Amino acid sequence: MYGKEMYEFIKRIFPICRSITGNGVRETLSIMQEYAPEIKVHEVPSGTAVFDWTVPAEWNVEDAYVENEAGERVIDFKETNLSVVGYSLPMDEYLSLEELKKIVFVEENQPDVIPYVTSYYRQRSAFCTSKNRLNALKDGTYHCVIKSSLNPEGSLTYGEALLPGESEKEILISTYLCHPSMANNECSGPAVSLFLFNYIKGLPKRKYSYRFIYIPETIGSITYLSRNIEYLKKNVISGVNLSCVGDNDDYSFVQSRYGNTLTDQMMHNLLSFHYPEYKAYSFLERGSDERQFCAPGVDLPVCSFCRTKYGKYEQYHTSADDLDYISPEGLAGALELLMKYVQAMEHNEVYRVMCLCEPQLGKRGLYPTVSKKGSYDAVKAMTDFIAYADGTNDLLSISNIIKQPMDVLIPIAEKLLENNLIECVNKE
Amino acid sequence: MYGKEMYEFIKRIFPICRSITGNGVRETLSIMQEYAPEIKVHEVPSGTAVFDWTVPAEWNVEDAYVENEAGERVIDFKETNLSVVGYSLPMDEYLSLEELKKIVFVEENQPDVIPYVTSYYRQRSAFCTSKNRLNALKDGTYHCVIKSSLNPEGSLTYGEALLPGESEKEILISTYLCHPSMANNECSGPAVSLFLFNYIKGLPKRKYSYRFIYIPETIGSITYLSRNIEYLKKNVISGVNLSCVGDNDDYSFVQSRYGNTLTDQMMHNLLSFHYPEYKAYSFLERGSDERQFCAPGVDLPVCSFCRTKYGKYEQYHTSADDLDYISPEGLAGALELLMKYVQAMEHNEVYRVMCLCEPQLGKRGLYPTVSKKGSYDAVKAMTDFIAYADGTNDLLSISNIIKQPMDVLIPIAEKLLENNLIECVNKE
Amino acid sequence: MYGKEMYEFIKRIFPICRSITGNGVRETLSIMQEYAPEIKVHEVPSGTAVFDWTVPAEWNVEDAYVENEAGERVIDFKETNLSVVGYSLPMDEYLSLEELKKIVFVEENQPDVIPYVTSYYRQRSAFCTSKNRLNALKDGTYHCVIKSSLNPEGSLTYGEALLPGESEKEILISTYLCHPSMANNECSGPAVSLFLFNYIKGLPKRKYSYRFIYIPETIGSITYLSRNIEYLKKNVISGVNLSCVGDNDDYSFVQSRYGNTLTDQMMHNLLSFHYPEYKAYSFLERGSDERQFCAPGVDLPVCSFCRTKYGKYEQYHTSADDLDYISPEGLAGALELLMKYVQAMEHNEVYRVMCLCEPQLGKRGLYPTVSKKGSYDAVKAMTDFIAYADGTNDLLSISNIIKQPMDVLIPIAEKLLENNLIECVNKE
Repeated sequence: MYGKEMYEFIKRIFPICRSITGNGVRETLSIMQEYAPEIKVHEVPSGTAVFDWTVPAEWNVEDAYVENEAGERVIDFKETNLSVVGYSLPMDEYLSLEELKKIVFVEENQPDVIPYVTSYYRQRSAFCTSKNRLNALKDGTYHCVIKSSLNPEGSLTYGEALLPGESEKEILISTYLCHPSMANNECSGPAVSLFLFNYIKGLPKRKYSYRFIYIPETIGSITYLSRNIEYLKKNVISGVNLSCVGDNDDYSFVQSRYGNTLTDQMMHNLLSFHYPEYKAYSFLERGSDERQFCAPGVDLPVCSFCRTKYGKYEQYHTSADDLDYISPEGLAGALELLMKYVQAMEHNEVYRVMCLCEPQLGKRGLYPTVSKKGSYDAVKAMTDFIAYADGTNDLLSISNIIKQPMDVLIPIAEKLLENNLIECVNKE
Repeated sequence: MYGKEMYEFIKRIFPICRSITGNGVRETLSIMQEYAPEIKVHEVPSGTAVFDWTVPAEWNVEDAYVENEAGERVIDFKETNLSVVGYSLPMDEYLSLEELKKIVFVEENQPDVIPYVTSYYRQRSAFCTSKNRLNALKDGTYHCVIKSSLNPEGSLTYGEALLPGESEKEILISTYLCHPSMANNECSGPAVSLFLFNYIKGLPKRKYSYRFIYIPETIGSITYLSRNIEYLKKNVISGVNLSCVGDNDDYSFVQSRYGNTLTDQMMHNLLSFHYPEYKAYSFLERGSDERQFCAPGVDLPVCSFCRTKYGKYEQYHTSADDLDYISPEGLAGALELLMKYVQAMEHNEVYRVMCLCEPQLGKRGLYPTVSKKGSYDAVKAMTDFIAYADGTNDLLSISNIIKQPMDVLIPIAEKLLENNLIECVNKE
Repeated sequence: MYGKEMYEFIKRIFPICRSITGNGVRETLSIMQEYAPEIKVHEVPSGTAVFDWTVPAEWNVEDAYVENEAGERVIDFKETNLSVVGYSLPMDEYLSLEELKKIVFVEENQPDVIPYVTSYYRQRSAFCTSKNRLNALKDGTYHCVIKSSLNPEGSLTYGEALLPGESEKEILISTYLCHPSMANNECSGPAVSLFLFNYIKGLPKRKYSYRFIYIPETIGSITYLSRNIEYLKKNVISGVNLSCVGDNDDYSFVQSRYGNTLTDQMMHNLLSFHYPEYKAYSFLERGSDERQFCAPGVDLPVCSFCRTKYGKYEQYHTSADDLDYISPEGLAGALELLMKYVQAMEHNEVYRVMCLCEPQLGKRGLYPTVSKKGSYDAVKAMTDFIAYADGTNDLLSISNIIKQPMDVLIPIAEKLLENNLIECVNKE
């Protein structure tokens, strides 16, 4: 569902050179607003104190290259924006091959790919290229140019959109915009988030409010949290951070700090039915913005949802994480899982059967009338639902206990509500 | 123990045509009163509202058959009362073979047996026979006769007997009387229940009261509960529903809704020592009156105890569940397990050792006096009992912890009580 | 560490004939005072009531032998003090070989070894020898002499030493002195305990107080507890009973009654990193003074720590448990584990990170500044420590969660404390 549309969107934003600050983020958000005008853009000035951190100077890069004596660009930002180390300072120098090699990063074990490298918090000027290309360079003098700027008067940019529901309680969907030209990590997250936003916008009604944020990783989530933490702690009942949701391999999630929040339980349940081979990574294997959302004292009930987890595929953080690595089907699979998550959240009531002993389903046309070997199974999901609709279990618990997926149980619950056989009980 | 006597009793009640109402139930109860005159018979008028249900009209059947053109009975209630679908309305019609086949049930996968079929809540007239016999019928006209009555002025019949103990707290033993001529399901339950009743009646003293009920399945338990639920909820501390307790194969039980009541724990413990290969079925595999006893809001601490569980043997609900399928030994094995359950319940005190540090067993003649490799093992059950008789564990817990069966521990507890080394502690 | 010194100490005390009372205990304690003058010696008069027991008469033995007609000693206390059954009454009799055999214990399955046998609570006079030696005896008359005394005016002797700390809360280290010439069980316990005492005495500071006791097994711990139980119950937060800590094989411990005290958790954690194949024996396999320390109502948080557990090696309680069975390395391994235990107890604070979201380690020189595949792992122990330093976990919990040994985490905690990134939180 929406696989092609998401893929087309990614093709538009893939070439943009994003970093944790700068015009790449703004340009990407501007394209996203075409799809979802509700997205508001926020700017936080460089130098702002955010918890233990400071919003960095704004970095932009216009061009960067290494030219050999023949005037040929052997490393070229125009070819791929991975060629320059993120947050590189401007430079214009002539270096020997030996000197050049000191400021070029390669991926030792994958000689064909260009690694993705950043240096946000230590000032340097450096390039990336493939090991093969670097090894092919001959002795000589190389002209190394980086046309970048690091503006202490700049700002950090992020996007935010809210879909209000009947309740102030909200579900937080986060993803990040700070990576340059890599497809899975991280054009896929913004793509799936954007189409999930539009799916929820189209629902006939919403019990919960849904907050979508598009931020740079780490410093962006720290900045966002520092501005909104009291509100979020009061209202967020569940949330998902999206990263690497476009490939065709695993389904996985990174558990919260203790792996015990509603979101953890939802992910376990949904994935166990959708893709029983799913992987539930411990918080010890964290690495994306769950690091901040689940930090001590922040404690938001947020998990990171991935297809193949960041760091677990060899294309990760290299030029091989390109448009061929992801697919419309991969993106659609992730989106569908998240739609199930939204449906499950919206229907996750505590149910209670309204009579003592089993109700007589037969007189309501809900039960086969001949008792015979096997006939009982036909309505098993319904009778099991009723058996555990005892005023203590929500939809999720019932699903876990009776081993039926929530999307099978939601229409059953609705039919039983219509027949006045069950009622919803306040959770508190 | 009592295996033969139970088997003889079953031979008497096997031929009777029982259903959820009618004279078959009364006739069976009348035979049972010969063994246990304490059994009182109750009648509940048809039409009485019982929770979400209504007591049905009373069904009786005098005869039923299908006669071919030669006047031979090709299906005959007199041969086996399984031949008529339970609650069939009267009929007297001439049908073609093709028409006949529409009202005859067979067991597709077991061509030699006659299935057991009922249609309590949808009015119809129908027969059962074996697939082989049906297939052997030739074209022609068949005279189909059912001499039955469905009396809206009738009643539902059940039996009940109470053995009062020192305490008003009671243990409920339930089984059902609504099945026609099938031996394991369900002549075995009434047989074992009846002899368990007489065993308990013969005990020198009873701490608890014991309530035995003999009811039709489902509508009977719903009816019984609707009349007694407040009393039962207040007083029943444990209970067992008996079904399929006469074969020689498994020992098993169906757990309560959450599998965590005292009865569940007792069953796990007793069966783990008695028959370590026992099966503990989840409530998701329920199917007998535990469905009502453990329904939300009813919540009695009741499990169903079986040898091979209903539905788990191929003879189940067919004419092959006959007197050859059960045995005196099978019945006796079930009865003995239930006797152990009664003994365990009666002795399930919380014990507390009366001195600090280990008591000196030697000076009381309870310990070998030479310390040597191996000699310690001799009194291990006793010293382990004392180690966990710490005022927090009942007999059941101690048994679970020290891995000794309760029937080994009961005489140890008695010896320690005599020596004033332990005392009983009030549970509350 | 200290392996040789411990072994040399053991060589000194090995030959002494100890029992649960008598001069052997006094002599051993006197040697120990050379190493630790803080050890105080206590005497408890015979006949003193101690819980369910009575302090026995004091036993001493000067000589014991069996002489053949040729005047040769075929069993001789001077050769090994295992030759006489502990607490044997004096005797001077001439017996036939047949009569002699009735008062000589051998180890049936190990024909070369002399078993260790005692008879504290039933009066008898008896010998031990090897099966081979007994079988070699010829018919004839044997002169059986035991020069022992059982003095009802004597006393039971034990040693005790306290190392006070900042807190009155204390850690109890117990071991026993009642075994004659056997090396692992039990010269090793006193040796390791003594050197652990001196290690703790040398620490620059002590948060907790450390109480060391050197007692006879069973009657000694019962006696000690009967005199000190209220104080111990109030102050002991953890404790270890040492037994069989000198061999080169297993590491193991015997869990407390429910296996859930701080000491149990410490032992699991320390051993899981130190020796992952360690064995955690259930309290059902108890056999040393944990029987008294963990008895109902005593309930001290004490485990028994062993290399190969008593009773689990074939030399146990025989003359084969000699100086060759233990080694300096075996003793040192046990001592080092106990030093880790002391360090862990001293640093087992509850920590809390002092900022929201992850702290910026980089600006404090605690984090690599280039983000690149793999670089994150370098500070993983530190970031994981911070992630779980949330004000609910002590050092032990953090170690268990993040799977890093406590001795790796202690310097990390100290570095973070220096940087004001974490603080210690009161446990209550």
